[in-house]
Amino acid sequence: MRAVTYVRNNTVEVHDKPVPEIAPDEVLLRVGGAGVCHSDISIIAGGDDSPLVGSTLGHEVAGYVHALGADVSGWEVGDGAIVSLILSCGRCRECLAGRDNQCEVVAPRGSLAPLSPGIGSPGGMADFLAVKAHHLDPIGDLDPVTAAPLADAALTPMHAINTVRNRMTGDATVVLIGLGGLGHMALQILAATTGARVIALDTDPNKLAFAREHGADLAIPSDGDAAARILSETGGVGADVVLDFVGVQPTVNLAVAVVRGGGAIRFVGLGGGTFEYRAGAGAGLPWGVNIERAYGGTRSDMREVVALAQAGKISVEVVRYSLDDAPQAFDDLHHGKIAGRAVLIP
Amino acid sequence: MRAVTYVRNNTVEVHDKPVPEIAPDEVLLRVGGAGVCHSDISIIAGGDDSPLVGSTLGHEVAGYVHALGADVSGWEVGDGAIVSLILSCGRCRECLAGRDNQCEVVAPRGSLAPLSPGIGSPGGMADFLAVKAHHLDPIGDLDPVTAAPLADAALTPMHAINTVRNRMTGDATVVLIGLGGLGHMALQILAATTGARVIALDTDPNKLAFAREHGADLAIPSDGDAAARILSETGGVGADVVLDFVGVQPTVNLAVAVVRGGGAIRFVGLGGGTFEYRAGAGAGLPWGVNIERAYGGTRSDMREVVALAQAGKISVEVVRYSLDDAPQAFDDLHHGKIAGRAVLIP
Amino acid sequence: MRAVTYVRNNTVEVHDKPVPEIAPDEVLLRVGGAGVCHSDISIIAGGDDSPLVGSTLGHEVAGYVHALGADVSGWEVGDGAIVSLILSCGRCRECLAGRDNQCEVVAPRGSLAPLSPGIGSPGGMADFLAVKAHHLDPIGDLDPVTAAPLADAALTPMHAINTVRNRMTGDATVVLIGLGGLGHMALQILAATTGARVIALDTDPNKLAFAREHGADLAIPSDGDAAARILSETGGVGADVVLDFVGVQPTVNLAVAVVRGGGAIRFVGLGGGTFEYRAGAGAGLPWGVNIERAYGGTRSDMREVVALAQAGKISVEVVRYSLDDAPQAFDDLHHGKIAGRAVLIP
Amino acid sequence: MRAVTYVRNNTVEVHDKPVPEIAPDEVLLRVGGAGVCHSDISIIAGGDDSPLVGSTLGHEVAGYVHALGADVSGWEVGDGAIVSLILSCGRCRECLAGRDNQCEVVAPRGSLAPLSPGIGSPGGMADFLAVKAHHLDPIGDLDPVTAAPLADAALTPMHAINTVRNRMTGDATVVLIGLGGLGHMALQILAATTGARVIALDTDPNKLAFAREHGADLAIPSDGDAAARILSETGGVGADVVLDFVGVQPTVNLAVAVVRGGGAIRFVGLGGGTFEYRAGAGAGLPWGVNIERAYGGTRSDMREVVALAQAGKISVEVVRYSLDDAPQAFDDLHHGKIAGRAVLIP
Repeated sequence: MRAVTYVRNNTVEVHDKPVPEIAPDEVLLRVGGAGVCHSDISIIAGGDDSPLVGSTLGHEVAGYVHALGADVSGWEVGDGAIVSLILSCGRCRECLAGRDNQCEVVAPRGSLAPLSPGIGSPGGMADFLAVKAHHLDPIGDLDPVTAAPLADAALTPMHAINTVRNRMTGDATVVLIGLGGLGHMALQILAATTGARVIALDTDPNKLAFAREHGADLAIPSDGDAAARILSETGGVGADVVLDFVGVQPTVNLAVAVVRGGGAIRFVGLGGGTFEYRAGAGAGLPWGVNIERAYGGTRSDMREVVALAQAGKISVEVVRYSLDDAPQAFDDLHHGKIAGRAVLIP
Repeated sequence: MRAVTYVRNNTVEVHDKPVPEIAPDEVLLRVGGAGVCHSDISIIAGGDDSPLVGSTLGHEVAGYVHALGADVSGWEVGDGAIVSLILSCGRCRECLAGRDNQCEVVAPRGSLAPLSPGIGSPGGMADFLAVKAHHLDPIGDLDPVTAAPLADAALTPMHAINTVRNRMTGDATVVLIGLGGLGHMALQILAATTGARVIALDTDPNKLAFAREHGADLAIPSDGDAAARILSETGGVGADVVLDFVGVQPTVNLAVAVVRGGGAIRFVGLGGGTFEYRAGAGAGLPWGVNIERAYGGTRSDMREVVALAQAGKISVEVVRYSLDDAPQAFDDLHHGKIAGRAVLIP
Repeated sequence: MRAVTYVRNNTVEVHDKPVPEIAPDEVLLRVGGAGVCHSDISIIAGGDDSPLVGSTLGHEVAGYVHALGADVSGWEVGDGAIVSLILSCGRCRECLAGRDNQCEVVAPRGSLAPLSPGIGSPGGMADFLAVKAHHLDPIGDLDPVTAAPLADAALTPMHAINTVRNRMTGDATVVLIGLGGLGHMALQILAATTGARVIALDTDPNKLAFAREHGADLAIPSDGDAAARILSETGGVGADVVLDFVGVQPTVNLAVAVVRGGGAIRFVGLGGGTFEYRAGAGAGLPWGVNIERAYGGTRSDMREVVALAQAGKISVEVVRYSLDDAPQAFDDLHHGKIAGRAVLIP
Repeated sequence: MRAVTYVRNNTVEVHDKPVPEIAPDEVLLRVGGAGVCHSDISIIAGGDDSPLVGSTLGHEVAGYVHALGADVSGWEVGDGAIVSLILSCGRCRECLAGRDNQCEVVAPRGSLAPLSPGIGSPGGMADFLAVKAHHLDPIGDLDPVTAAPLADAALTPMHAINTVRNRMTGDATVVLIGLGGLGHMALQILAATTGARVIALDTDPNKLAFAREHGADLAIPSDGDAAARILSETGGVGADVVLDFVGVQPTVNLAVAVVRGGGAIRFVGLGGGTFEYRAGAGAGLPWGVNIERAYGGTRSDMREVVALAQAGKISVEVVRYSLDDAPQAFDDLHHGKIAGRAVLIP
């Protein structure tokens, strides 16, 4: 079968690999769509000697059940399914509590990232993927092409939002920075699941236009005037919640500058921006601000985004590529040419 | 009346000031006890030109109702009462939601600290204090000497703990750093109100002995071996919650080093330690860690600590000073000679 | 001034009463609109000897500030404002915790209802109303005619929903029974603030048509087939949440019949339907179902509904009557002729 | 092996049965202790034709791993372990969300009780029990005799308490009715994990004496004066939370009579007492009271009670019986002769 393979620094190629055997508790999924994520760009920037060289990429995967392991029940050939982002154990304290994105087995202390398809385990940019039945959720009639990106581009915002949902009351202001792959889903999730006022920011006027059509109460350029504008819009007190889906230095600065005292920031974008956190007054951060770097999402978050997509309340803007054109898709994403999410179709 | 006054850099004196007049909505409180806090040491380090020079200090205040304004109801002369730490408006969105320590009126954006007795408003290190009836809570038969420190030394830990109480399950590990004025109350609050395992740390062996007698499941020196010990005690995964009541560089480093992925840190101590917060992997902080710099507490938090003290479930270790000896009390606190809390008694 | 007065059993008349004097902490509100509620119908069914005979009705009130008491700050003549449903004290434990609809002063144990305008205190179906400044919230540019019903018809559903919001995830099913004055607002609040699937029920086809246009995912007749249909729609497990805005025997039966194990029911409608609650298995109610009879809402709930109305995310369907036509409005409501909410306009 | 078997109405006998074979995902547990519960008494009152006739009883089970199925990892022979009360699937929406006591597979709509050891699946009153590795939690050095009752007698109260923990603040009053097998654990859990004032009630003076020694702030007879006393102790407003571990008519009446407006009741005891729940005012229940019939507990609850027991913060009062004396133990429990929990020891 074809498999998009990380062959050397910043390079992927479509290689031929054997169709995987499945264990008794696994399903062989015929891949219907596999999203391309900025994380994939980061992964293949790991050099020529990364332990991931040679592996198949792809952590946003949906498709159809093609074959069932001997011990699998509850699935039939032909069923539509989406693959978990985090291949959690289902047994540890965190999994049992519904916090499986912090699974103690697959996301141990010091690991750079939890075990995921395409990140430590074979990915879904291929014709087939072997996956434990436990790591599948049903998608019903959803098209795997538009469903696949739900596994990260919708799941991760849903999780970040759920960690601070109690502050997103009908009289709250949420600032959403960045309307790319994850951000354009975050916007729709906010519009679909909260009554909060959403102020969306991006540097791209097209994305701001998209935001205005998809539930933003206000969409403004992410520029030097943004902080003053947000403070003005909130009567000088700042935003209840700031979601930063970019994470570069200017957006981190903006998040810190506009969050209200007692408000919350969720950093999701991996842009590497920093600020000095100080125990005591200072560093520009008001008292009582609650901060978290969200990562991935839980099985419950996945159920939510699939249900919202099935109800038509959120939908991924998809740019379609043949699986064979994966190198082109990576290149286009790297150069900022993708509006929404690139999906590879086997 | 006598009033402990900030007269110049690092210097307090007991001055004679007129007994305050009370407005129709105010009560004249005969002060029974006024705690001395590290914040007071910081305040008087504000130089000779601080706007607070000339003001009466004291934000931990309890006493007896001495006179009532014309519009005051619900109080009688002789009632024991404690004064709110934060003189919240009771009217704004945050106050109405029970988040009054973030009162939009008295803790506006950019203010260094909310309005408190002794911090922008006359303090309670005096024979009398005029205070709005709204800012009093009843203390029943509690002695104002031991009750006064509840207003900050117990309130502030209670609030910090309440912001992360949902993670303090019976199978959770809480690391408590610093057993001084606030920390020794935090320990008792944790023991009284959660079933979590508490690992207490301090550099002072006497305070560790205190901790062992007051509910710590483990009390260990806050030294270079502490992080390894905590990781070992938690099977390598780290602590669910870290409460840092010191905030100097070594304790901030320790907090970051031992918190588990998906865990939480609450910074309360104002030691000025820092770390680099990064959007993206790195800086030693696991994914999903929830961080907050807690400040003060709410009216509901105050009700809780008073009730716990009345039930004998928490109690302040008090070192008593006559009001006239305030300069000595400040000096002793500054030199680390106080075990528990110094209280001035008029 | 004119005032709609409960004169005897089932009878209101427009009487002339003096414009009220205001106390120093009060505002004189020029009423712009006053909603007519089923509760008003119930109140005037209290007989000829009810303690409320002679009083002015009206607990859904909005208007403009006409005069200010001497101690009032934060308001100016001409400001638009809405009056709190529950005239909470702002001082007791429940008020301080943001649970002011359970105010210990105005909703003491054994009281039939908390103190409200028109229920124990003069109501707003009049040209003017004197009200404590503390009991007003700003409405900005909202028209008092459409804003007035927010005070109960939107507030009460918002509160009921907020008590169970954590179960209204994107993959949850909420059953909403009754699309009258409160129910048609509940529907909009659900659509605006949650991603849950909403199944709306009513006996009136016009209201079902309204529901389909205002966010119901499914709108079905509230008849003998409803329970089976809902179970079918939820794969046999039942609804996560049931909101009953009617409360007659058939709707209570339906609520009990379709709630899932571990789900929740909120009874809001006062129809007097009953069921036998049993400690132990039985009575048709699955294990773990969480039940509450919601009453009114909090100040925070009020802020939310006003903000949602200002953003155009919810809006009251208003049937306008002159204040002089109050008897007609009561009669029309009593005979089920009102679609949405009747509002009296002075 | 020996197995305590339900042979006919109200009768158990110790029969000889084969040691069970284990499947690849199962563990053979050598039973160390098996608690006897009032539910067991109820089960064997099911008549001569109950589908459970012939089955081995026992849903509170702890012991040592004796043999491992081929696919089991994470366990070694000799490890101490406790068996889950509810044999949840680990796969369904409720399990994934950490609400596994509502597992859709083993607690489907209409089932009288979820699948448990001894209730639809072989129980642990035997020398050995075959159980899926997934349904075991480690108990470390705990003695299986004292650990076994944690599986229900501690788990079920922990769950009930966790459903309403947010109301158990340091200034709250919790009324605990019934100090039997579950109630005496509930008391200890309340004392260990909350700061609330606990008023404990029972008809047995010995149990009240126990309560005073194990954390009750007040212990009073459950008689006709109890309601008035509780109202008096709470300043007339009533209790924030009532936990009824009996559920007979007098205790149900008491719960309804003393809960405050906006408070909560959790019915756990299966005594069959009833009250009329009415949509609208009436039936004696204040507005806003939150009610739930708790059942069992989750895997997370189990982790908590095991950790609390390991820390010595809770402990079961055990009355030991040889497995061969099971009929005597059932008889003693039925006649109210057990203080704490009877445990059968193979």
